[in-house]
Amino acid sequence: MKSHILGIDLGGTKVMAAIFDAEGNIISRARAKTKAWRDDEMVFQTVSRTAEQAMERAGIPLGDLRAVGIGAPGPLDPDTGVIIESANMKLRNFPLGPRLAEAFACPAIIENDVNAGTYGEYLAGAGRGARHILGVFVGTGIGGGIIADGALYHGFSKNAGEIGHIIIKAGGPRCGCGNRGCWEALASRTAMTRDIRKAIRRGDKTRLKEKLKQETDLISGSDLAKAYRAGDKLVVRIMNRAARLLGAGIGSLVNVLSPEVVVLGGGVIEAMGDDFVARIDEAVRDIAFEFMVKDMRVVRAALGDDAGVTGAAMLAREAVERA
Amino acid sequence: MKSHILGIDLGGTKVMAAIFDAEGNIISRARAKTKAWRDDEMVFQTVSRTAEQAMERAGIPLGDLRAVGIGAPGPLDPDTGVIIESANMKLRNFPLGPRLAEAFACPAIIENDVNAGTYGEYLAGAGRGARHILGVFVGTGIGGGIIADGALYHGFSKNAGEIGHIIIKAGGPRCGCGNRGCWEALASRTAMTRDIRKAIRRGDKTRLKEKLKQETDLISGSDLAKAYRAGDKLVVRIMNRAARLLGAGIGSLVNVLSPEVVVLGGGVIEAMGDDFVARIDEAVRDIAFEFMVKDMRVVRAALGDDAGVTGAAMLAREAVERA
Repeated sequence: MKSHILGIDLGGTKVMAAIFDAEGNIISRARAKTKAWRDDEMVFQTVSRTAEQAMERAGIPLGDLRAVGIGAPGPLDPDTGVIIESANMKLRNFPLGPRLAEAFACPAIIENDVNAGTYGEYLAGAGRGARHILGVFVGTGIGGGIIADGALYHGFSKNAGEIGHIIIKAGGPRCGCGNRGCWEALASRTAMTRDIRKAIRRGDKTRLKEKLKQETDLISGSDLAKAYRAGDKLVVRIMNRAARLLGAGIGSLVNVLSPEVVVLGGGVIEAMGDDFVARIDEAVRDIAFEFMVKDMRVVRAALGDDAGVTGAAMLAREAVERA
Repeated sequence: MKSHILGIDLGGTKVMAAIFDAEGNIISRARAKTKAWRDDEMVFQTVSRTAEQAMERAGIPLGDLRAVGIGAPGPLDPDTGVIIESANMKLRNFPLGPRLAEAFACPAIIENDVNAGTYGEYLAGAGRGARHILGVFVGTGIGGGIIADGALYHGFSKNAGEIGHIIIKAGGPRCGCGNRGCWEALASRTAMTRDIRKAIRRGDKTRLKEKLKQETDLISGSDLAKAYRAGDKLVVRIMNRAARLLGAGIGSLVNVLSPEVVVLGGGVIEAMGDDFVARIDEAVRDIAFEFMVKDMRVVRAALGDDAGVTGAAMLAREAVERA
């Protein structure tokens, strides 16, 4: 019986593919980067080629997969396998699931990329053993995944979990979505970069000034972490504020969802490390009710880049086992 | 076979009990009010007496109930029937479920009062037919209930849904819970009263001035609605702002939970009516993603005071049918 599962993580600028054996171990990986997606065929070909590379490395012949799962930006329909829209990959009503099923001659499922990452952490990472999990991924935006009673929560639109767009500061800074005061307009890497840029214009000194020459430059998580550890005053101030704002958003969501574990991931969190997570944890406990947080844990994601491919592969395996 | 169900709604200042026949129709009601709860025995005796009155009115002899369900303020444990704490009723670790089961010689369940109300609206009210519902009740605070895929969502602590305590305006007005900028510190009846009081102190004119003589006076929903309809400038301004803030909070929650129906209830909503709900709906659609709200409805609660007893009774019936 075919036993290998292909997991794929499709992002704004990169694709990662991994082959999983029957025990859920990764036996090969492949990656591709792009500066910009041109159209749906370019996306699909990059995905296919990267997946084929992972298969070659694992010695799995084409047609020998049990299932394929892919995490991709939404909104998307996990039931039909169609990506409804992804502005930054120039996809619209693209049947990614059916196309993958055809190309790899096996069942294929698609899932929101952040949901897939949260599911990976739930089954094999920092959320293991818990049944109610909130995944929070801090990067250029803030993405979220909700595990409710052991299953991904999709809601009516099938695209629940847009946690970056809760209003945390009514009337606050403008968000990419058009609203004011969204959480990701306050505490994402994009927001941190904007605040550093603004402070530089006001005359504040920072070692990160040289990283912000172009109007489109975004400070990386590791540059933020290095400046923070070096005691760069501006960066310390901005990151401490970010920790409080991340805590305010997570605390708000905890009051609504009451998870057992909050898994914190994404570039900023990975680079800043456990001290930053501890600061956020403290801010969460200031905001959320005692009876919500008493036995709740806030932990750093454990799988790094493997979270997305792992979750996607596990969801694909469950789908074929259910069928 | 015993077929009648007793539903009870226990609140900060009142108790309501109703008897339901096998078809789920209310065949009798009873109510009691109190200025303040003294201790747990006073709460329990008031509940029992009110329930007995409803049974007498329906002609149901003691010992002839199939089940009893009660909605009560939390936090509480629906599995053990214990109210963990209710400051304003002076309850602490009170086994309300087991006590009711003993007193009425039938199975008893307890549920958070707002959850019970949301469940009532889901099964018999404005949310009928939908599987994902967000209940939002605007009164002295803002309470919420979440129906996920046809079942009440409890989360890890069993007390999820404290939607009044999401941070909507970081650094904003102080909330009863101690935080700053909670939703209910911005858009509840308590917040509306505070804002009117503040404006009067600044010299603004309003017909509601006479209603605010005592420091503890709270404007009622119907007084707000009357002043609004009479064109009282201050009240119109405050209620329009409240509609936008209610929309900001609901829009935030929609982005996270993606319900099919948002049921709006509570004293302020009932008094202000459909125009106010339409304003809130508009604000929700400004905040939430198009793909979340496209087929979503924002509706006014349909059951009024009956929502809580209905939900509690239906939950009790389901519990005995499952057992």
